[in-house]
Amino acid sequence: MGERVHRVVFEPDGRTLFVPDGQTILEAAQRAGVHLNAPCGGKGTCSGCRVIIPHDPPPPTETCLRELSGEEIRRHLRLACQVRVRGDMRVVIPEETRLGDQRILTEGVARAVPLAPNVRKVAVHLPSPSVQDQRADGERLLDGLADEGLADLRLDVKVIRELPARLRDLEFHPAAVVIGRDVVHLDRATSADACYGIAFDVGTTTLVGYLVDLTTGRQAAVASRANPQAAYGDDVIARIEFCGRQRDGARTLHGLVVGALNEIIAEVCRKAAIRPSVIYEATVVGNTTMNHLLLRLPVEGIARAPFVAASASAHEVPSKDLGLRMHPRGRVYTAPLIASFVGADTVGVILATGLHEDDRLRLAIDIGTNGEIVLGTRSRLLACSTAAGPAFEGARIRYGMRAATGAIDRVDLEGERLALHTIDDAPPVGLCGTGLIDAVAALLEAGIVSRSGLMRGGAGAAAVTEPRPSESGAVAPALAQRVVGADGETGFILAGADETQTGHPVLLTQRDVREVQLAKGAIAAGIVMMLEEFGARVQDVQEVLLAGAFGNYLRPERALAIGLLPPLPTARVRFVGNAAGAGARMLLASRGLRRVADDLSRGVEHVELSQRPEFQARFAEAMFFPVPGP
Amino acid sequence: MGERVHRVVFEPDGRTLFVPDGQTILEAAQRAGVHLNAPCGGKGTCSGCRVIIPHDPPPPTETCLRELSGEEIRRHLRLACQVRVRGDMRVVIPEETRLGDQRILTEGVARAVPLAPNVRKVAVHLPSPSVQDQRADGERLLDGLADEGLADLRLDVKVIRELPARLRDLEFHPAAVVIGRDVVHLDRATSADACYGIAFDVGTTTLVGYLVDLTTGRQAAVASRANPQAAYGDDVIARIEFCGRQRDGARTLHGLVVGALNEIIAEVCRKAAIRPSVIYEATVVGNTTMNHLLLRLPVEGIARAPFVAASASAHEVPSKDLGLRMHPRGRVYTAPLIASFVGADTVGVILATGLHEDDRLRLAIDIGTNGEIVLGTRSRLLACSTAAGPAFEGARIRYGMRAATGAIDRVDLEGERLALHTIDDAPPVGLCGTGLIDAVAALLEAGIVSRSGLMRGGAGAAAVTEPRPSESGAVAPALAQRVVGADGETGFILAGADETQTGHPVLLTQRDVREVQLAKGAIAAGIVMMLEEFGARVQDVQEVLLAGAFGNYLRPERALAIGLLPPLPTARVRFVGNAAGAGARMLLASRGLRRVADDLSRGVEHVELSQRPEFQARFAEAMFFPVPGP
Repeated sequence: MGERVHRVVFEPDGRTLFVPDGQTILEAAQRAGVHLNAPCGGKGTCSGCRVIIPHDPPPPTETCLRELSGEEIRRHLRLACQVRVRGDMRVVIPEETRLGDQRILTEGVARAVPLAPNVRKVAVHLPSPSVQDQRADGERLLDGLADEGLADLRLDVKVIRELPARLRDLEFHPAAVVIGRDVVHLDRATSADACYGIAFDVGTTTLVGYLVDLTTGRQAAVASRANPQAAYGDDVIARIEFCGRQRDGARTLHGLVVGALNEIIAEVCRKAAIRPSVIYEATVVGNTTMNHLLLRLPVEGIARAPFVAASASAHEVPSKDLGLRMHPRGRVYTAPLIASFVGADTVGVILATGLHEDDRLRLAIDIGTNGEIVLGTRSRLLACSTAAGPAFEGARIRYGMRAATGAIDRVDLEGERLALHTIDDAPPVGLCGTGLIDAVAALLEAGIVSRSGLMRGGAGAAAVTEPRPSESGAVAPALAQRVVGADGETGFILAGADETQTGHPVLLTQRDVREVQLAKGAIAAGIVMMLEEFGARVQDVQEVLLAGAFGNYLRPERALAIGLLPPLPTARVRFVGNAAGAGARMLLASRGLRRVADDLSRGVEHVELSQRPEFQARFAEAMFFPVPGP
Repeated sequence: MGERVHRVVFEPDGRTLFVPDGQTILEAAQRAGVHLNAPCGGKGTCSGCRVIIPHDPPPPTETCLRELSGEEIRRHLRLACQVRVRGDMRVVIPEETRLGDQRILTEGVARAVPLAPNVRKVAVHLPSPSVQDQRADGERLLDGLADEGLADLRLDVKVIRELPARLRDLEFHPAAVVIGRDVVHLDRATSADACYGIAFDVGTTTLVGYLVDLTTGRQAAVASRANPQAAYGDDVIARIEFCGRQRDGARTLHGLVVGALNEIIAEVCRKAAIRPSVIYEATVVGNTTMNHLLLRLPVEGIARAPFVAASASAHEVPSKDLGLRMHPRGRVYTAPLIASFVGADTVGVILATGLHEDDRLRLAIDIGTNGEIVLGTRSRLLACSTAAGPAFEGARIRYGMRAATGAIDRVDLEGERLALHTIDDAPPVGLCGTGLIDAVAALLEAGIVSRSGLMRGGAGAAAVTEPRPSESGAVAPALAQRVVGADGETGFILAGADETQTGHPVLLTQRDVREVQLAKGAIAAGIVMMLEEFGARVQDVQEVLLAGAFGNYLRPERALAIGLLPPLPTARVRFVGNAAGAGARMLLASRGLRRVADDLSRGVEHVELSQRPEFQARFAEAMFFPVPGP
């Protein structure tokens, strides 16, 4: 006796399959190469594989009842992984469930997410009105989009004001731009492929923008700028104080960041050869202060006890309201926050690293002007913020700079000399974050910098009263002689005046070392406190993820060498790049992740370090450098 | 053995009941005088009686699954009529389900609807922030409102910009104004009772505004104005042509109607002694052209074949966008339309008369500048529009006026004289709609006006060549001598110059009679066509509802006497006043009705009379007056 098979027709493309009795629709589709959105792999937890069974849908399973709304069930939606084929049937695959072969966001450290953006641009052929078909223009368009699987959309009065003329100009064959449930614009049908979004990481010191082609999920260009607000204070506290002190201070800071974001938009458009008007959505992650200044929310409450933000929610605002020069009816989505000092950037880090979906105990550290730390597992996540300062972003460092051409991004001790590497192999200009960490690590290794952070001189250097690291012998004379007095403080010459682009030497100064100690000490102390709060030991941590808008690769062994991280095998440490920015890109590519972000915003426990009396002691301990390892 | 009883505690007021085993929560509540919103009386069809069972809710019944969303079921919502009490339990009654004793909209002809407005104003006591409770201001407010049963609300960025200062001014004890899902404003807690809406009937000729107290559902004041757009054409076609002809014509007409609506707002506020800023929502019904001119949508498509409107949907727009002087963050809801010439006013008439819920065949006629006709039952409704013209609203009538002080609103033939009644018993000024119909009916009865509409003179009147109505004897001389020549046409003196306020006589002219013939002929012909389309005979119609913004009572026998209605027993005819306006008030009082309005907008069949070749013949026949009845 042969196997019973049924005929299943997939709409809208009419593909027909013969499916063995009892197989699920998802299995059948997968075998036939019909790609459905099912990131959970058919476990019934992602609710991605929604399909419509127009005739005699089977009763909803428990899973369907849990994952779908009552309205969806009434509309005959079911999860394809839940429906077993028991007879011939027709299955409609809504637009949101379809998944092209290469529609996966793969760039950067972001985890792969199915491309299901909040913005869709869909070409429709509408029938022309006639006495037999007198539907209003608005209803005609909405009906046409519903036929394309985009049901329950809305048309704002502002769009309808232009709709009759626009539809007739386009001969009833427009490409509709849909953001969320709103039809915001009609473009020519031939421009249906021109559909972009931009993901912003708005940091205290550094702004990065990633242009994403929303039809493919591919990153089309990237650009960054220094945050020009830094002129009014290099950390968030200083900027909040400026807003309190200065009338229109908040307006000034808002204008500055928007101006820089507009420069980024212009740059990525130039690089990708597109018009800014085909960027329909921006997503933004940023710390609470950056978020509030961008949205023009009051910041005063953030900086004074009890440290209360105006809003922790995600927001969707018209691009016009903020002054961003993208499509004039575009939208800006700002990701939700966790607490006053743990912002949407941390939500982005969690999304990008998947901490919230892992059973292993993992630690993520986002090294920016504030150092945010997240520790935990799928069942419990803790987050805190430490005032690390902007040292690793090049600020407050004598020769600090962003990761641009000529920045020393790598320093290695090779015998008795230091080997430098610069970005684009250009003559040195200054030190970027990775170079700074490398330089300190190399000088620690060489014995030039002591455990307490004192720079040990050659001829003419300040007297060193502190005992030298025990295992270290004499400092190599070739290195010791590079320690010089400069402007009243001690410094180490990384590159001499004759080697640089500028004609000035590049030095690492005693004060720079102190800045590094403060920054890494704050983060290291935070890690210790978080482990205590979680009730875990250092060795329980299965993976440490180092994140940050470093332009270049940060070497885990160097982070361990300067004691930024607690002592752990190097193999457990991984640098994941700008995870906050990767999270912003994921939120652009997958609107479903925005619900996950909301859950994280409410579910992650915030640990307020400043309220704990033991923090200062931990901080003081953590400023020491570790004994150089083998 | 005694009956088993269980203890049921109703939250938030803590009322405790002992309930026999097996009774539903709704029954138990009703017996105890706990008022739940259950307009369907417990049949499980209205989904009004939603309650939350916080602990161990019973599995949802079929009815619950049908009426509630998946999200609601997950939130432990159930319908009180579906849950049988089987043990001790706690039941939370959300704000939307609570029903005060007198919270029923009863004024006017509107059917009683449970008061469940789209606008809520709720006082909340929020805990002050502390280091132990660092929730952001926005989340603090949303959490507080959720505790009051208002879950899933949203806070716009514009509101949050003011929130921190506002919450502290109000010492964390605000009255939150919620429109739909949006918190739009925080008022003082002591003003929680000041919560109003206004329902507008925007007619081609007449504008009416009803101020409704949304905490009680009672009508607080009413005011009306002539539509000042009439200066640019007294019907919709003329106004659309003006917009096509004149640059900025649409803007001019928009400004005029908004100005008049603002006068109405000012007047009802004066009458009710409230500030316009406590009016948070306006609902609007109006024909398609009035709707589009108010919303600033293009009107050109309405008037030229194939007669296509820009939008038939309901819209919700900020009051600011339209320029209405109510609360600056208030909203204007415009009801949906059926077709280009069957507008939201007709949706209002259907809602107010309940045509869509009745098994009987019923006919409703809304007499305005356009005469809209609806015919049908619960299972099928037809609607059409006839170009009746503004005669019944006083326009195009020599001494026509709105129903205001001094308007002749009633004319009776008493033997050989006419008895007049005027509004406020003031000396006559002119004729309003009911007076016009009465005057024509009286003169028909007296034999002064013939079946074909000719006015038959006394001395000095034009020669009458037409045969006189057969049953009529000689015209009473006292009446015949009141027919005079005036400005080259024949007229009947209703009130002499010595009797009026103005010192001029009030006449009904030959041309006025022609206007009445055109108006009533259009409507009567429409009724005939609608019956044919439905496949019913006149005598199948169980009830005829006459609606219109007539200021005074329109007598059904007079509508029959002039042939506005087909011959039917008077007992089947009922005047229901301004049903469109009543519908607007119902949409203000019950947000759930807005979904019903959407269904009507899509479900009612539009009959396009102008496309039917037989219409002109029917129209010509219908212009005749009927033979005066017994």
